[in-house]
Amino acid sequence: MSQLPDVHARADVRGIALAEVGVRGVAAQITLDGWLGSELPVAATCALYASLPADRRAGHLSRFGEALGALCEHPLSASHLCEAAGDLARRLEADRAGLRLEFSQLVPRAAPVSGAVGMTRIDCAIAAQWHTGAVEFWQEVSTLVQTVCPCSKEMAARGAHNQRCRVTARVQSVGGLAQQELIALLEAGGSAQVYPVLKRMDEKLLTERAYDHPAFVEDVVRDLAIALSRQAHALRYRVEAQSQESIHPHDAYALAEGP
Amino acid sequence: MSQLPDVHARADVRGIALAEVGVRGVAAQITLDGWLGSELPVAATCALYASLPADRRAGHLSRFGEALGALCEHPLSASHLCEAAGDLARRLEADRAGLRLEFSQLVPRAAPVSGAVGMTRIDCAIAAQWHTGAVEFWQEVSTLVQTVCPCSKEMAARGAHNQRCRVTARVQSVGGLAQQELIALLEAGGSAQVYPVLKRMDEKLLTERAYDHPAFVEDVVRDLAIALSRQAHALRYRVEAQSQESIHPHDAYALAEGP
Amino acid sequence: MSQLPDVHARADVRGIALAEVGVRGVAAQITLDGWLGSELPVAATCALYASLPADRRAGHLSRFGEALGALCEHPLSASHLCEAAGDLARRLEADRAGLRLEFSQLVPRAAPVSGAVGMTRIDCAIAAQWHTGAVEFWQEVSTLVQTVCPCSKEMAARGAHNQRCRVTARVQSVGGLAQQELIALLEAGGSAQVYPVLKRMDEKLLTERAYDHPAFVEDVVRDLAIALSRQAHALRYRVEAQSQESIHPHDAYALAEGP
Amino acid sequence: MSQLPDVHARADVRGIALAEVGVRGVAAQITLDGWLGSELPVAATCALYASLPADRRAGHLSRFGEALGALCEHPLSASHLCEAAGDLARRLEADRAGLRLEFSQLVPRAAPVSGAVGMTRIDCAIAAQWHTGAVEFWQEVSTLVQTVCPCSKEMAARGAHNQRCRVTARVQSVGGLAQQELIALLEAGGSAQVYPVLKRMDEKLLTERAYDHPAFVEDVVRDLAIALSRQAHALRYRVEAQSQESIHPHDAYALAEGP
Repeated sequence: MSQLPDVHARADVRGIALAEVGVRGVAAQITLDGWLGSELPVAATCALYASLPADRRAGHLSRFGEALGALCEHPLSASHLCEAAGDLARRLEADRAGLRLEFSQLVPRAAPVSGAVGMTRIDCAIAAQWHTGAVEFWQEVSTLVQTVCPCSKEMAARGAHNQRCRVTARVQSVGGLAQQELIALLEAGGSAQVYPVLKRMDEKLLTERAYDHPAFVEDVVRDLAIALSRQAHALRYRVEAQSQESIHPHDAYALAEGP
Repeated sequence: MSQLPDVHARADVRGIALAEVGVRGVAAQITLDGWLGSELPVAATCALYASLPADRRAGHLSRFGEALGALCEHPLSASHLCEAAGDLARRLEADRAGLRLEFSQLVPRAAPVSGAVGMTRIDCAIAAQWHTGAVEFWQEVSTLVQTVCPCSKEMAARGAHNQRCRVTARVQSVGGLAQQELIALLEAGGSAQVYPVLKRMDEKLLTERAYDHPAFVEDVVRDLAIALSRQAHALRYRVEAQSQESIHPHDAYALAEGP
Repeated sequence: MSQLPDVHARADVRGIALAEVGVRGVAAQITLDGWLGSELPVAATCALYASLPADRRAGHLSRFGEALGALCEHPLSASHLCEAAGDLARRLEADRAGLRLEFSQLVPRAAPVSGAVGMTRIDCAIAAQWHTGAVEFWQEVSTLVQTVCPCSKEMAARGAHNQRCRVTARVQSVGGLAQQELIALLEAGGSAQVYPVLKRMDEKLLTERAYDHPAFVEDVVRDLAIALSRQAHALRYRVEAQSQESIHPHDAYALAEGP
Repeated sequence: MSQLPDVHARADVRGIALAEVGVRGVAAQITLDGWLGSELPVAATCALYASLPADRRAGHLSRFGEALGALCEHPLSASHLCEAAGDLARRLEADRAGLRLEFSQLVPRAAPVSGAVGMTRIDCAIAAQWHTGAVEFWQEVSTLVQTVCPCSKEMAARGAHNQRCRVTARVQSVGGLAQQELIALLEAGGSAQVYPVLKRMDEKLLTERAYDHPAFVEDVVRDLAIALSRQAHALRYRVEAQSQESIHPHDAYALAEGP
């Protein structure tokens, strides 16, 4: 069997180096360390890649699967992910390599008056990229909040249009921000938090609280940009708010980047 | 070339008749007749199927493509689609055959005060099924409206949570309902219509109008069920409302079927 | 606070009973009992519903969240889900009620020669419906296999087109089929199993194995229908195969239902 | 009515300029000029944005809708889109503004032997961005081809795994590349073209042709990179191939960027 031809390793004469060669949509069972998440295993969807020099025909894709398997054996921290990016570069003999893991975390949320509890889904990703010795770690969190339109409220004699707004933060750091704190920052944005289970007394409180705190998507990303720029560990951030306008069939969108 | 083996037509000995064999995700450029839509061509995504008797190995899938091509040569009416279902049954020598075409129609909508115009997308489908001589025609329309929560409004000292609500009607008829009237019925549901372009004076009016007409998903489907049961051409209907609750990360849902 | 109005409970005079009122897209952390899955907790997306009599205005949606929370406290079996459907009917005072939980299970799969291991995602759902005292339990499993086209193989002087094919089985039973056995039945369909990590010796074996076992979508669903009809616990089944034809931009599809 | 408050125009004291403020998911009926597409109107989904200075609270989103409406009145060329980006910057008083229109084009394709015709969907986008006087135009085209794995073919005694591969090219140019030529370049990539309708004689030819031209995703993007670098009008390109591996549940991926 060892005489099977290695077609991928052959020379390529077209003279074109590739920015990325890899795999997408790979399943992995991961456990995050306490800093990045809970101790519960979660199902991740992973992309892994490495650059390919001009003189080699193709990447050995099975090496990505092996690297991912090794990574999943222990609870994942930011530094483990950074090491994995460097490991990929070595396995693939590449200048640049990286990986991105997408997953959902379910967190319990209690209604503000009744205390009724349900689970909320937070869409998350962690990513690391190694490039000729330097490594970057990124952490992404996305959730829903409610936004009440300040313009609608001020103009209308009664009521104000409001809606779900998806808030997404992508933060580069050394070592990662504490995941629960990052989620809490996002949930504090907008006009009010959303909850999985609400009794009537909760719904009354939240309706009034949201009406008292109107926010444009521009307000949501600016407030979050300020909060993130105060995080000691954050190097760079990218914050998006996309509001599913209840008076329009399309969304309002704002993006802040820093520092 | 005529001696190529016809593997599909061979006998099958497993003794299992199949409910459906066909193709999904087929692209087609269709024009609807004036009754079902505008004269503009639209890009449709199509599924076509036929039953398969127990003694035949597989369906001749290229015949679905040919039937679809023939159907697209002229403006489509409900009766054309019904004929196409019967034609499929003949081409495939099947007891039962049908097809379903999904497409979007863009319709212009003018803001209620300023008259500012933009396009709104209506998700549509038409379907016909032939079964041992009898044929059914279905028409489906789906769009967004705004719903203001009656419970939130009545409890809260100020404001009321509201959101986008997707309303979908599926109607069986002979000959089809006039598409523009069906769309108008759906847009009249909920607390207020949504619009692509709104100036400030429009937003004020719509905020107040929606606040004055609160509606649960249950109200939306009941009102629409009554409206559809009054349509002379409608034989059966199925009405859904799915409200993207702005206080929850999940949706509220209601379904009415009749008669 | 107890004087808050109960708008949902009010009388409705439109005279229209609703087939379903409920919630969709609710997150829940569930653990399946050993029969239905592994002991690992998985993130589920849930839909819950109940019928609504004509004389009541709306459903109390928070009761669905409470019922779901209670359900998640212990490992889930088929009989727990059936009890939950009956419990929903009681909580909502409905003739008919049900729930459907969708989730992914990651299972390890070892390559056939090298033994290299990676995870494969199986899309799953379990559902129960209570209707005036009778209860039904359904179990759904969906995964990918490879199909080599028998017609292409027989006609072509060399090669044969092949592709991914999604196979989905939905089975009604009393007590549920053993989940790992059901998954194994599906993976045994088609021309060859797909694997997350393959070394060259594995790829050689699988290419030849698939080429030696060509299968139409019709073959896939017939073989699986026979296997399911032999399961002692299965009452009814619905089997689909959707092949992502590598020579077409659309899919081939087959459906078998029984008994 | 003219006394309605202009909440968006108010001063903001947080000191944070925003990279983008705008709308997403806006529907528009567009006709492309002959160079960029056919004369048929197509339904586009549009995103429009502008930067927002630190001292202004929010963007006037209705101005995006008005700009889009004006753009749709005449057949669209690359230079029209570039003018629209500059126009947005003026309307919003922004340093940077842009828009991106996504749409599908259906093109007829005839089988290579039988000549049987059906429609193929090409996913397209055009985008322009204006930045302090300079403007960029991008054109994106995405379609499916078939790839036969060179490694599988060389190792296996018979057969070779193959699958659908999505090929996407994004090209910056002055004036745009002729759309039909760009689509033709993509369809010429991979091991064989995919077709909507095939008779048996076509399937035989394509199976053999694909088997005779095996291609990794690396080969697909390299060949396309060479072809694009020879286009006189192309300034920069980004080419991706994502192959839906029939032996894996995940995809292989390659990316080339140039010049």
